[in-house]
Amino acid sequence: MAVAATVPLRDADDLSLAYTPGVARVCTAIAEQPELVHDYTWVANTVAVVTDGTAVLGLGDIGPAASLPVMEGKAILFKQFGGVDAVPIALNCTGVDEIVETVIRLAPSFGGVNLEDISAPRCFEIERRLQEALDIPIFHDDQHGTAIVTTAALWNAARVTDRKIGDLRAVISGAGAAGIAIAKMLVAAGIGDVALCDRRGVVHQGREDLTDVKAEIAALTNKSGRTGSLADALAGADVFIGVSGGTVPEEVVATMAPGCFIFAMANPNPEIHPEVAHKYASVVATGRSDFPNQINNVLAFPGIFAGALSVRASRITEGMKLAAAEALAGVVAEELTPQKVIPSPFDARVAPAVSKAVAEAARQEGVARI
Amino acid sequence: MAVAATVPLRDADDLSLAYTPGVARVCTAIAEQPELVHDYTWVANTVAVVTDGTAVLGLGDIGPAASLPVMEGKAILFKQFGGVDAVPIALNCTGVDEIVETVIRLAPSFGGVNLEDISAPRCFEIERRLQEALDIPIFHDDQHGTAIVTTAALWNAARVTDRKIGDLRAVISGAGAAGIAIAKMLVAAGIGDVALCDRRGVVHQGREDLTDVKAEIAALTNKSGRTGSLADALAGADVFIGVSGGTVPEEVVATMAPGCFIFAMANPNPEIHPEVAHKYASVVATGRSDFPNQINNVLAFPGIFAGALSVRASRITEGMKLAAAEALAGVVAEELTPQKVIPSPFDARVAPAVSKAVAEAARQEGVARI
Repeated sequence: MAVAATVPLRDADDLSLAYTPGVARVCTAIAEQPELVHDYTWVANTVAVVTDGTAVLGLGDIGPAASLPVMEGKAILFKQFGGVDAVPIALNCTGVDEIVETVIRLAPSFGGVNLEDISAPRCFEIERRLQEALDIPIFHDDQHGTAIVTTAALWNAARVTDRKIGDLRAVISGAGAAGIAIAKMLVAAGIGDVALCDRRGVVHQGREDLTDVKAEIAALTNKSGRTGSLADALAGADVFIGVSGGTVPEEVVATMAPGCFIFAMANPNPEIHPEVAHKYASVVATGRSDFPNQINNVLAFPGIFAGALSVRASRITEGMKLAAAEALAGVVAEELTPQKVIPSPFDARVAPAVSKAVAEAARQEGVARI
Repeated sequence: MAVAATVPLRDADDLSLAYTPGVARVCTAIAEQPELVHDYTWVANTVAVVTDGTAVLGLGDIGPAASLPVMEGKAILFKQFGGVDAVPIALNCTGVDEIVETVIRLAPSFGGVNLEDISAPRCFEIERRLQEALDIPIFHDDQHGTAIVTTAALWNAARVTDRKIGDLRAVISGAGAAGIAIAKMLVAAGIGDVALCDRRGVVHQGREDLTDVKAEIAALTNKSGRTGSLADALAGADVFIGVSGGTVPEEVVATMAPGCFIFAMANPNPEIHPEVAHKYASVVATGRSDFPNQINNVLAFPGIFAGALSVRASRITEGMKLAAAEALAGVVAEELTPQKVIPSPFDARVAPAVSKAVAEAARQEGVARI
């Protein structure tokens, strides 16, 4: 990626306007009326893509320098799909306090912060503390981007099979950032029941080994009070959502309810291969571009930030996330098939629809400032 | 300004190359061989323009948000004149320790750091500690950019009037970042004598009110042991260099040596108006674009960073700065007149000449890494 000027610099007049002495008048205006920074600088449309390199893709803790290609790729997607300017910021520190204070110090330079590839459970505290401290949107894409696209796909899967989301019991494999956020969002979306599974099985209130975040999830989910392993939870389940990277044996898949949905999103190796999944499921989705129904975060984050920045939202609320998921699902509402419960990443309708819905929701929720 | 993609993103193949899953191979390669970050990301050509908003132009401590137009303007100049990508980073903290630790944490994202509009004396310690901690170029432009362009202009003023820099006695008005750096560079360039003046007059070793930095300058400069006021120092002086924003009365200017040089660089109001200066001086320069001989930092910083980044220099040494000044002076060596001792900011020969000289000097000084 590169930086580009949006104004010409051809002669001394241009120079004295873009830089000294002309720029002094712009600085003075902002000093007197701080809101003008949105009109007179690139801040209003610019997002920091912040990582510490501790949970990069499926590669794990590879450090800040090695994480930069992901951040730079993400920045290009922000621009291409959402028209949002984004800057990769890979931090050379991993402590929660250090990351929080660093991002707070950087904040005047940006209109929003996209947290990326920061390992759980630190990512939850970092996001929460940053949002408490700052009045610009803080959005951990590995959590909410994934949750929004998954929820949209699940709504459309229910629609295309003529079912109601309130009648479905879902099981999530993987209790990292994505799994936690998906569980919360499915509850907010009115799922019948959802159980989250980590390596030790179902996250339930009887377990004594839970982190604070998982304990919170145990209280929110698993209404039917299941215990035991992932396989135990999957028996009779209507929905499998894989964000774990593990593998689910076919004999376990075979125990799921008839006409189930299988979203096996691990990359590059889905937890359940689509060929196996199709034997048992009515709708199959993966994280891969070479199968139908790709659950890809690029369907969410460009439009979400474009919408939030367009109304200078102070945060991205649960209502804005649900609105994004609804809008995303709505893009293909008229052309639904089991092979198309979610739009293609290159569907040009997506980002504008998501952006518009997010901006409207921000207004409704009272977090829009223009 | 805006961010731009340098690769196309037209279809799923492009997407899987620029982002997942293709990007994972790039990350893995960098994790195994860290130097590859220069080949595979924008870091090698990217500079953070870092400020805390405490000394913005002549406006003073207007804070980070109000300083952003300057940083953004500077970023555009970096791109236009040096082909360098630059990112405005305005920090919401002013403590030396905080700024130093924040920039160290950010460093993996950038190939160099341009410090900007940070007030003295904090700017000196911040630059020194950052350069000790990091192996990328740290360059406080208000100091070194100004010093390089001033030195180049002084060399050419001596050349065009057939004098030797070793025979000249200079007086600098203003002991902030620029004045300090100019004094040091003139000593390194072999000036006959130079005295720095702050609001209390000549900085000399007999004074007990000096900061550490000024005490260091007192030991380096003022060989002739002058004391007293700016007016006292200017009597018989060959060169006036103004970086103060004050005004020098005409009767004081009249006491300077015949054929003197007057560089009155305060913006927008030169310490000595060019009309007055021309009555007494053989060469007159200002910081303004509407008079001949504009001392403008844009003549230095784009080429300096372009050159330093092109050889992955670990720092910008005194030798590299002198080489930059020599190259800058050399651009107009064949077309020198008293009205043209320094090239125009739009002279397309400048940045390539400076960049080449800086890269060569980096190699000679052993700080180049490719």
